[in-house]
Amino acid sequence: MTDELTVDFEPLGRRARVGHGATLLEAARQAGVGLNAVCGGAGTCGTCRVRILAGQVTPPTEAERDAVADGCRLACQARALGDVRADVPPTSITAPQRAQIEGRERAVELDPAVRSFDVVAAPPSLTDLQADVTRLREALQEQHGVAVERWDHPTLGRLSVLLREHGWRARLVVRDGEVIDLAPAGTSHLGLAVDIGTTKVAAYLMDLGSGETLAAAGAMNPQIAYGEDVMARIAYAMEGEDRALDLQHHLVGGLDDLTRALCGQAGRASSAVAEAVLVGNTCMHHLALGLPVRQLGLAPYVPALADSYDVKARDLGLRLAPGANVHLLPNIAGFVGADHVAMILATGMHEAGEVTLGLDIGTNTEISLAVDGRLLSCSCASGPAFEGAHIRDGMRAAPGAVEWVRLVGGRVEYQTIDEAPPVGICGSGVLDGVAALRQAGVLRSNGAMRLEDHPRVRRTEGGVEFVLVPAGERSAPRDLVITRRDVNEIQLAKAAIRAGVEVLLEEAGLEAGQVERVVVAGAFGTYLDVGSALAVGMFPPLPRERFVQVGNAAGMGAKMALVSRRCRGVATEIARRVEYIELTTHPQFVQAYMAALVLP
Amino acid sequence: MTDELTVDFEPLGRRARVGHGATLLEAARQAGVGLNAVCGGAGTCGTCRVRILAGQVTPPTEAERDAVADGCRLACQARALGDVRADVPPTSITAPQRAQIEGRERAVELDPAVRSFDVVAAPPSLTDLQADVTRLREALQEQHGVAVERWDHPTLGRLSVLLREHGWRARLVVRDGEVIDLAPAGTSHLGLAVDIGTTKVAAYLMDLGSGETLAAAGAMNPQIAYGEDVMARIAYAMEGEDRALDLQHHLVGGLDDLTRALCGQAGRASSAVAEAVLVGNTCMHHLALGLPVRQLGLAPYVPALADSYDVKARDLGLRLAPGANVHLLPNIAGFVGADHVAMILATGMHEAGEVTLGLDIGTNTEISLAVDGRLLSCSCASGPAFEGAHIRDGMRAAPGAVEWVRLVGGRVEYQTIDEAPPVGICGSGVLDGVAALRQAGVLRSNGAMRLEDHPRVRRTEGGVEFVLVPAGERSAPRDLVITRRDVNEIQLAKAAIRAGVEVLLEEAGLEAGQVERVVVAGAFGTYLDVGSALAVGMFPPLPRERFVQVGNAAGMGAKMALVSRRCRGVATEIARRVEYIELTTHPQFVQAYMAALVLP
Repeated sequence: MTDELTVDFEPLGRRARVGHGATLLEAARQAGVGLNAVCGGAGTCGTCRVRILAGQVTPPTEAERDAVADGCRLACQARALGDVRADVPPTSITAPQRAQIEGRERAVELDPAVRSFDVVAAPPSLTDLQADVTRLREALQEQHGVAVERWDHPTLGRLSVLLREHGWRARLVVRDGEVIDLAPAGTSHLGLAVDIGTTKVAAYLMDLGSGETLAAAGAMNPQIAYGEDVMARIAYAMEGEDRALDLQHHLVGGLDDLTRALCGQAGRASSAVAEAVLVGNTCMHHLALGLPVRQLGLAPYVPALADSYDVKARDLGLRLAPGANVHLLPNIAGFVGADHVAMILATGMHEAGEVTLGLDIGTNTEISLAVDGRLLSCSCASGPAFEGAHIRDGMRAAPGAVEWVRLVGGRVEYQTIDEAPPVGICGSGVLDGVAALRQAGVLRSNGAMRLEDHPRVRRTEGGVEFVLVPAGERSAPRDLVITRRDVNEIQLAKAAIRAGVEVLLEEAGLEAGQVERVVVAGAFGTYLDVGSALAVGMFPPLPRERFVQVGNAAGMGAKMALVSRRCRGVATEIARRVEYIELTTHPQFVQAYMAALVLP
Repeated sequence: MTDELTVDFEPLGRRARVGHGATLLEAARQAGVGLNAVCGGAGTCGTCRVRILAGQVTPPTEAERDAVADGCRLACQARALGDVRADVPPTSITAPQRAQIEGRERAVELDPAVRSFDVVAAPPSLTDLQADVTRLREALQEQHGVAVERWDHPTLGRLSVLLREHGWRARLVVRDGEVIDLAPAGTSHLGLAVDIGTTKVAAYLMDLGSGETLAAAGAMNPQIAYGEDVMARIAYAMEGEDRALDLQHHLVGGLDDLTRALCGQAGRASSAVAEAVLVGNTCMHHLALGLPVRQLGLAPYVPALADSYDVKARDLGLRLAPGANVHLLPNIAGFVGADHVAMILATGMHEAGEVTLGLDIGTNTEISLAVDGRLLSCSCASGPAFEGAHIRDGMRAAPGAVEWVRLVGGRVEYQTIDEAPPVGICGSGVLDGVAALRQAGVLRSNGAMRLEDHPRVRRTEGGVEFVLVPAGERSAPRDLVITRRDVNEIQLAKAAIRAGVEVLLEEAGLEAGQVERVVVAGAFGTYLDVGSALAVGMFPPLPRERFVQVGNAAGMGAKMALVSRRCRGVATEIARRVEYIELTTHPQFVQAYMAALVLP
């Protein structure tokens, strides 16, 4: 395939050069255009719509019928036969998206794995012929009582020159008996905590000397162009060994960019970062380390690695300080990862006296139940509906998404992100919509909709639907609807979560009413309306005040582990203590799931 | 400089493409022709002679006067002005040279840092969801009682696939609580011991399970094209940061080639080598690690690193097993390196009951004296005369070198390496020649030669000289002579060694006669005639039977450290115990040196 054609993406002004017959999705990836591709390019999700403005492409495939009806093509199906100019609608773009980076912080005592010390050494002379390393080692012992045994290799290489340039004064950065960096005296050293979500990455830059958070930022996970959920990424990675490395490479590149941006905000360089903590679900954890993920995609879904892990940043290709270490918290199982451990750590539910239910809601929802010193955890495939996928007018939480809905006396009230003209409905909006329709009696308990119950209900070729936003209202480019199918998607998603909760309660021998606190974490968990979630039966019927929304608890847990070795020990202890309940083979699961499908 | 000219080297048939004005030495380096360059290309040593067969080069410089008189040019001075064809005489080539790889072995108990274990793990199932790493860790603990805490990163990446391909059986290679490699069950793991000399590299491939030596080989140190002695290398490295890395890169490339060749002999791949031990003088040690050597070239000559050191082979760019470790024995001082520690270890002189003197003779000669539990060491700049450099007809120990000489009743008897036609005189030949001429009364005690004492003594423009081999004898291409100047070079070299010995004896409060054993190591030390060395006064006058020539003791010490952790501990203990005597500032040194210049 020779590079002979150009594909231009408007209004972004990005250009790719591709071979004859390349798909527009391939072109978009090459051009750095973050097109949605929930299914990983299989033609089944319909999220990568583009409009052909000029140029010749292959005829529409069967998979593109819906898209073509809207005057669009699917970028994963359409192949360039000449130079092409394509328009990318905002709903097809993965970025910018609202990222959840804040969370409730718990104070921890500063006890980082990395500490730094200023030392002054005597210069060598004809009567003092000690080696540079010996000189520094003894100065560190004498001046700070710190013993070191090992010297990181790139650090060792820079030591003799730096010492002589800075008059035999230096700051030594020490980790676990190893000198991992060397800088002019007085330099402070930084740490990086990262929560790698399947969709989004949240990162925090901290001063390891003071424990202060210097900067925080969110970004899209760059792997998103290769499939939006975990299974799509695994499928992509399984196509060939270089593809898993591709995914790792993209993630590491994104982390490098994010680190550079955070350090820039703090007026520092990435090379000042001496330690990082990464958390993520088991698949993101494995992809970050470059581990194979094939076994995560096949029963019995076991991780390659569950223990906490330390690796030199350079062995991952990550550009931090030359000897920087990356610490990964332990995983619990194939679908309950280090991010859930971090969430438990951050919420303290493992040591709370109360019966606590903790949920991190996403494409995959991890649930833990803490009771009488026990910790039970499970994972349920809640699907991408809460991310706006598989929903007719769904989109992710980006500007113009309807994020909040209620029916007041038959009248629809709603709010969009950034108050932009409505272009789609994000997860919390769909959940609100379904809850409101059910509460207003428009929906039956099985999810069916009746034409006679609301003037906005209409029947189309595809079935019945509720018009949430008519075209033109607040400059909406088209009608935004909630279809019967969309309602079913929400039913499937919430039933999976509820069934998980019920199985855990069953295992613990508890009634739902005995749960004293429900901790809801994660981006969707932050923005969802607990009342709506209760209305659709996602959670057991508990008083509203027992619920607490804690934001990005996984990120907060990563920060705690960054500044506290004790917290790392606690995380290992949490992972060890967890009794993992595999839902797919659990005798009560199917029954609980069927029961939970009903809208209360 | 564009690559526009070709330079061909005959009879080797090597070609370089260089820019207009490039020196022939640069061309030789590019073409991989191992031209001698004792001075590092400064035009002072005259060892890089070539004959121009065709093509235009720059006019001779002042430095080339002697070479031009012989119809030659110096490759470091002559610059190509057009396509050039040059003839390289055998005396100008660094390879092949006789390398000393054998040595006296001392038996050590097998106790390698790296051990490997076959394990069988149960495959995961829906009722056994442990991670792959946990599974292997527990199998190792249960089946071999071995606890591991860490997993080398590239090894971790290969583990899940290999386990599944080989039916959950594998061989784990463990080092200090870390799993550093993984292979199909039953695979044996190898170790590599290397003595990196300034001129030559000797390497040994061992089976770490049995302790058996599988293969051994010698090769030239590829850095030799950048200067033949330590100071020339340091000077080259100091010209710029990339130059020190150049030197490291060349050495590592050479070690890779040597490892591949050794492994090929054993029918294995380099990736089966799980541990390596390197020894060398302090400069070679630093250059192998990519450490700066600037401070080794400037008073007070302190090393960057003296402690023993462990580093991942991949951090040095060395291609062994993915997680292989490289261990470097400790250095003693800027000019007494890990090779001398290895020599002491191999000879056992540190624990001998006898008063022992140990010498490793080379361009730099390291000397140790063991007495009553004390170990005193020094280093003396004996110069390259024993390598055949700075000697009128000197050459290194390669085929055609006169290596053994005696005068029998006024008649000269000699022997050449491989019995090839005599083309030059190597170090042992020059030493024998000087000793024989002194014993025959041709030389006075100050090194002067008398015309009347032997018909072979003649006077030329440059001074008096002794014709060792007349042109034509055994097809010698020209007269081979020992000049008055050559005698002086030998006097300077042997005086440096003798003065070192005398200072050590003085420091220990000993008379020479109290030395019970003299251990002579190294390539030159293997081939020198002890009688000749005694005759010129290189050693104190001791009975011949107190001397023992042990071959490449440094290589033997490296092998011991490869298979025995205890020996590594002993090496550290040796380095710690040594009382290093700096000769350059020692009050007795100059006097001892002046006294030692005399031929007894």
